[in-house]
Amino acid sequence: MKNIKTQVGIIGAGPAGLTLAIWLKKNGIEAVIIERQSRAYIESRVRAGLLEQNTVDIFKDLGVADRLVDEGLEHHGVYLSFNGKRVRVPFDELTGGRKITIYGQQEVVKDLTEAWLSSGGKIYFEAQAEKIEDFETNNPKIYFQHEGEQGVIDCDFAMACDGFHGLGRKTLPKESYTEFTHTYPFSWLGILAHVAPSSEELIYAYHENGFALSSLRSEEVSRLYLQVDNDDTLENWSDERIWEELAIRLGTEGWELKSGPIFEKSITPMRGYMIDNLQYGRLFLAGDSAHIVPPTGGKGLNLAVADVKHLVDGLVDFYKNNSMEALDGYTKTALKRIWRAQDFSNFMTALFHKQEEHGSFQYSMQQAKFDYIAISKAYATTIAENYVGLPFEAFE
Amino acid sequence: MKNIKTQVGIIGAGPAGLTLAIWLKKNGIEAVIIERQSRAYIESRVRAGLLEQNTVDIFKDLGVADRLVDEGLEHHGVYLSFNGKRVRVPFDELTGGRKITIYGQQEVVKDLTEAWLSSGGKIYFEAQAEKIEDFETNNPKIYFQHEGEQGVIDCDFAMACDGFHGLGRKTLPKESYTEFTHTYPFSWLGILAHVAPSSEELIYAYHENGFALSSLRSEEVSRLYLQVDNDDTLENWSDERIWEELAIRLGTEGWELKSGPIFEKSITPMRGYMIDNLQYGRLFLAGDSAHIVPPTGGKGLNLAVADVKHLVDGLVDFYKNNSMEALDGYTKTALKRIWRAQDFSNFMTALFHKQEEHGSFQYSMQQAKFDYIAISKAYATTIAENYVGLPFEAFE
Repeated sequence: MKNIKTQVGIIGAGPAGLTLAIWLKKNGIEAVIIERQSRAYIESRVRAGLLEQNTVDIFKDLGVADRLVDEGLEHHGVYLSFNGKRVRVPFDELTGGRKITIYGQQEVVKDLTEAWLSSGGKIYFEAQAEKIEDFETNNPKIYFQHEGEQGVIDCDFAMACDGFHGLGRKTLPKESYTEFTHTYPFSWLGILAHVAPSSEELIYAYHENGFALSSLRSEEVSRLYLQVDNDDTLENWSDERIWEELAIRLGTEGWELKSGPIFEKSITPMRGYMIDNLQYGRLFLAGDSAHIVPPTGGKGLNLAVADVKHLVDGLVDFYKNNSMEALDGYTKTALKRIWRAQDFSNFMTALFHKQEEHGSFQYSMQQAKFDYIAISKAYATTIAENYVGLPFEAFE
Repeated sequence: MKNIKTQVGIIGAGPAGLTLAIWLKKNGIEAVIIERQSRAYIESRVRAGLLEQNTVDIFKDLGVADRLVDEGLEHHGVYLSFNGKRVRVPFDELTGGRKITIYGQQEVVKDLTEAWLSSGGKIYFEAQAEKIEDFETNNPKIYFQHEGEQGVIDCDFAMACDGFHGLGRKTLPKESYTEFTHTYPFSWLGILAHVAPSSEELIYAYHENGFALSSLRSEEVSRLYLQVDNDDTLENWSDERIWEELAIRLGTEGWELKSGPIFEKSITPMRGYMIDNLQYGRLFLAGDSAHIVPPTGGKGLNLAVADVKHLVDGLVDFYKNNSMEALDGYTKTALKRIWRAQDFSNFMTALFHKQEEHGSFQYSMQQAKFDYIAISKAYATTIAENYVGLPFEAFE
C-alpha cells in the first residue's frame, strides 16, 4: 500500500486540479494530484477554448501564461447575428478594456501540467480514485489504484476536481445538497477544420434553420458549431452539408465563410446541471464535478478556475489563521458566480437557438431582445460584462 | 341618416382616440370621435395609472397636463423585492433624470375629454360602431348607431382606437396579419383601498407565495395586487386575508404595510396579445385594439400614446406633402416599441411571479437575475430605461 501524506489531496488533473495545486504551492501549501487518465490523454482532450479576463489574469499571476500570451488570440468584441443582421458588442468600450482570450483547453492543461511537474509537483497518472473517507474528520483519506497497487492520500483536505462523472459528487452525502438539471431540446454538432477563421472574432448566430457559432482555435484552425436535434447523428452530416449549412446560418451581406478539411466532428447535448452544496466537512468540489453550464457563453473552464480561487483563499486562511471560516463560506461565495453563469449561458442559449417556430411569439421575443442589443448600451453592456467575466469584487 | 364629413374618423374615446384628436387639431387636422360608452362611464373606468416620461411630455406639449402636473405623483425610482430582500432602482442616476408619474387612467381620460370638448371637438357618446367600409379607397366610411339613428363618418382616414374587443381589428382583413397570443398560468387580484401608500414608490415583489405589487393612486388611495391562480375567485379572498397575504409577500425588515378599507376588488388574467400589422389601406389601429401587454411593466396606456405619436407624424406628413410614405411605415415603426414592451413586460412578469416550485432551477434563475440587478449598473439600467420608457429617438 502506497501511503502519501500531504496537506491537500486533489483528484483530477484538469484545469481546476492543476490550477489549485500550483496556486497552493505558491502559498507554501503542499498538494498531490491523482488523475484517472494518462498525461497524453489529458493534454489532447478537446474542450472549450475561451478564457475570461479573470482566468488569464490568474494564469499570469501564477507564472503559467507565457505560451498563452504568445499564442492566445485576444478578442475585444463579439459578433451577434440574427437572420443575417450582424451587430458587434465591443468589450473595450463597454467593460473598461476587459477582453477574452482564445486558447484551447488542452493547451492550458499542457502548460499547467508542465509548470506543476517541473516545479517538483507530483501527479499519479492513470490512477483510479476508489473512495474518499473520513472527510468529516480533520484527516480525510483518498484511496486509489495505481499500477496494480492500492494507494492512499492521507491529507488535511480532499479536493474533488474530477469532472461530472467523478467520485467527488458521488461521495458527497445526498442529503447535503439539492440537484438541478436543465435539459435543452437540441444539441451542438461541433467541428474542427484546417482553415483560417473567416471572422477574427466569434459570431453567435440565430437563423431559422437553427443556431450556428463561428469560433476558432488558432490562426489556422477554425472551430464551428451547428444546432441539431437531440436524435440527430453524424451520419446525416457530410462535410459538404456542414459547410453549406454553416454558410447559410452565419451568412451576412458582403461576408463569405471559408471552408477547409474537417478533422474533428462530434455531437454534444446541451444541458445545465448544478448542486447547491460544494462542501461536506473537509471534502470540497470544484469545476465540472459540481456544475455544467451550456457551452453558449464559454463559461465552463472559467467557472472551474473561479472555484479554485475561492478554495485557495480559504485554504490560505486556514493554514495561516487556523480558521475554517472562509472555507465554510466557499459554497455560498462560489454559487453566486455559478448561478450568474447558469443564467447568462441560458440567456445566450435561449436568444440564439431556434426553439418555437420561426415567426412565433417566442421567436418574436428573441428578435425583440436582439434588436434591443443594437439600441441600448446598457443591454449590450450586460452581455459584454458577463461574457468577459464579472470581476471577483462584483460579487462581494 | 346622420352624415358627418371630417378628415379623420376616430372610433373610441380612450387615451388613444382622445390624444389623437387633440394632437391632430393642434396641427390643423379635423377629427370626430364616436364612443360606445357614456361620458360618465369612460371617466370612471379604472385602468393603469403609470405614465412614462414620453407620455407626460406629450400631454404637456398638448397643453392637457395642468391637473396631471398638480396631482400626479412623480417617482424617481422603483423598489424590487425578492424573498424579503429589497433593492431600489434609481431612475435619476440610470436614465439621466427621466421619471414616471402616477396618475390614474380615468383622470387622464377626464382631462383629455374636457380639453377636446371645450376646444369645440365632437364626441358622439353611446354611439355603436357597426362597420368600417371603403378603407381601401381614399374615402373610408364608419357606420354607427346613435340615439336610435344610423350615422356615417365620411372621412380620409378611419382610426380604430376601440380597444381589444373593438370593431377595428375585426375589420382588418385576416390575411393581412399574424396574431400572437401568450397566456400566463396566473392572474392578478387587484384592490383599491382608502389608505395612504405604505411606500412612496412602487414595490414589485417575488415571494414563494407568489407575486405582489404595492402601488398607489394618490396620497390617500393605495392600489395593490396579488398573484392568484387563474381559477381563483374573489369569494376566497376576504379583506383580512388580502391584507395578511400582502404583508407577507411585500414584507421586509423594518417596514410595515398599512391597511385600510378596500373599495374595489377584481381578478384579471394576465396575457400578451399582438398582431403584426396595424394598417390596411386607410384603416389604422392604435392601442389595445392591436396589442395587450401583461400589466407588470405598466406599459398599456403608454404604448397607445406612442402609437398615436406615429400616426400624427404620418397624418401631418400626408396633409402637408400629400404623401402616404410615413403612414405606410406606421406598422413597422410602432411595432419596434410594441415588441420591446412585450419583451420587457414579459421579463418583469417572469422575474417576479412564482412559476415553478420555490427552490427549482427556474426559481434559482429568477433569484440569479434579481441578485444581478443589485451588482450590475448596466442590468439595473436596462430595467430603469424600459420602465421610464425608451425615448422615441432610440428606435430610429
